[in-house]
Amino acid sequence: MAATKSLQDLFVNLLKDMYFAEKQILKALPKMAKKADSDELRQAFEHHFKETEGQVERLEQVFGLCGLKPSAKTCPAIEGILEEGEEDMKEAKEPKVLDAGMIADAQAVEHYEIARYGTLIAWANQLGMPDAARLFQQNIDQEYNADMLLTDLAEGRLNCEAA
Amino acid sequence: MAATKSLQDLFVNLLKDMYFAEKQILKALPKMAKKADSDELRQAFEHHFKETEGQVERLEQVFGLCGLKPSAKTCPAIEGILEEGEEDMKEAKEPKVLDAGMIADAQAVEHYEIARYGTLIAWANQLGMPDAARLFQQNIDQEYNADMLLTDLAEGRLNCEAA
Repeated sequence: MAATKSLQDLFVNLLKDMYFAEKQILKALPKMAKKADSDELRQAFEHHFKETEGQVERLEQVFGLCGLKPSAKTCPAIEGILEEGEEDMKEAKEPKVLDAGMIADAQAVEHYEIARYGTLIAWANQLGMPDAARLFQQNIDQEYNADMLLTDLAEGRLNCEAA
Repeated sequence: MAATKSLQDLFVNLLKDMYFAEKQILKALPKMAKKADSDELRQAFEHHFKETEGQVERLEQVFGLCGLKPSAKTCPAIEGILEEGEEDMKEAKEPKVLDAGMIADAQAVEHYEIARYGTLIAWANQLGMPDAARLFQQNIDQEYNADMLLTDLAEGRLNCEAA
């Protein structure tokens, strides 16, 4: 357990946390894409997988800006959120119900990332690291878009099909 | 593990998940208030504790609308998010750094709830339960407000003091 004595320590800690989280999400998304019944939902997960690869690269750039090698710190939050998603996938006995549940769980993931990138942007600005803030902003913009796309898919058709 | 065969099953499942989550949050908030260095932050946690008590009551009303007794389902997501908050509290060695870290972790909790209540509102509307949707809307409005208040506290002063 690393002691955090400054905002810089908190920042690096959370950067490592998100590096772990994005890598776990890269493992989860292909499983979700494979299970999706709707073509649109599968494509949404596949598209977000590619975006997430880019997000990992941006985090690596921020490690570089800090003069650090990329390293991950176990993130119990994302582990819990993804574990809940795995449970929900096992419990769902109908393809349309599974789709509605996966959308909900993916949105829980997006919101976790939105919260964390929001914090990282604020801390980067406070620490005088505008380049890092810009990289996090690109990531958070993608998370907001992914969240909105999932809402459109759910409310446009998939919740209705699951009902 | 309960099989989910319909959107109604998913809805009840997530209702139980949030009932568990809100009760865990009721346990966490007093610890966070006690540790807060800033008076404003302590008051924000205390105020949100009272709001959360009301949110639990609204969830109980939704159980009633479904003809069910309130019951909780273990929510690995909130367990993970709160576990991460506990770790961060132990690691923080300076009061101002602890405040900045607690704000960040509280915002991760708020965003989890925003994601979940957003889903519950959509599912309640789909299932023809406008009264449930209205109760969830009251909860999500409080979560959005709590999140904004924490952002204002952090960006107004507390991040600066931690830096």
